[in-house]
Amino acid sequence: MARKIEILRLDHRTVRDQRITSHVALSARTFGATGFTYAGERDLNLEESIKDVAKRWGGSFTINYTEKIGTFIRAWDGIVVHLTMYGEDHRDAVDVLREYDDDILIILGGAKVPRYVYELSDFNIAIGWQPHSEVAAIAVFLYDYLDKNLLYADREGASIRINPNNSKSKRSERFKN
Amino acid sequence: MARKIEILRLDHRTVRDQRITSHVALSARTFGATGFTYAGERDLNLEESIKDVAKRWGGSFTINYTEKIGTFIRAWDGIVVHLTMYGEDHRDAVDVLREYDDDILIILGGAKVPRYVYELSDFNIAIGWQPHSEVAAIAVFLYDYLDKNLLYADREGASIRINPNNSKSKRSERFKN
Repeated sequence: MARKIEILRLDHRTVRDQRITSHVALSARTFGATGFTYAGERDLNLEESIKDVAKRWGGSFTINYTEKIGTFIRAWDGIVVHLTMYGEDHRDAVDVLREYDDDILIILGGAKVPRYVYELSDFNIAIGWQPHSEVAAIAVFLYDYLDKNLLYADREGASIRINPNNSKSKRSERFKN
Repeated sequence: MARKIEILRLDHRTVRDQRITSHVALSARTFGATGFTYAGERDLNLEESIKDVAKRWGGSFTINYTEKIGTFIRAWDGIVVHLTMYGEDHRDAVDVLREYDDDILIILGGAKVPRYVYELSDFNIAIGWQPHSEVAAIAVFLYDYLDKNLLYADREGASIRINPNNSKSKRSERFKN
């Protein structure tokens, strides 16, 4: 398993994308990424809100901005994965990725992904050959690739935690064991 | 496995939620739901754009609007699942759900979920006890619950298809078999 799993989100637009990019970053964090870098328009509100969640809910998760996508990708010391509808079946790629413990950079495109992103990537990976969402793509990719227990583990330094035995987690009588 | 898997998305707001709700609906479709109903503000642009994708990309997927959440849930003839951060570990629930072949309604909340939604649901299910995204939640839930081959299967009547052998799906030399 990789030690460092960083997301690179391309082409963020402050107004149009704020909620989607925020959902991408939060999903990346929840499903086991260690950091998130974005390109496009700088968005300090986005950065603050992600840092705030990460601080309160624990664990370590970084958020950064880059202006130079090509330089950033070329400087990555590890495996580069690009999630795209045009990629290969993710299950084949995940089988191969599990044999390595390199750091992994996961690129998520914006409106139009430059050709060199496909070419600089070690893997171009689809999560289904249907249109859906970069939020769903990053969540399902990480969920499939990483240890599923991560999702329910306590995170170090959290000041907020869900109590799974609260009354809202109830099942109806019919389905109780 | 369930025959009819319908999403009920609460509290849609036309301006603020259009992209997120659209990502929820598209992810629901891609990951195997058969229909999508939403409450909150009626949004004809949303409906048109989802219908358009569903038509071009094939398979059958319906989109509907309801004003009466409680009535809609009570009228559901099958199992009611509510996805919420406050729910139980989804893996336990999925194990139980796999023993039934009833239709399933999956409720996704908005800003504030009324108490009766928890109470009318047979299962209140978390996808991790961390804040993330309703898009990630629906995708991972359906991915875990349904046949994963769905994701890559041809869909009937599609006028658009991804060719998985196109040049964009390439791997770098190091990782070729």
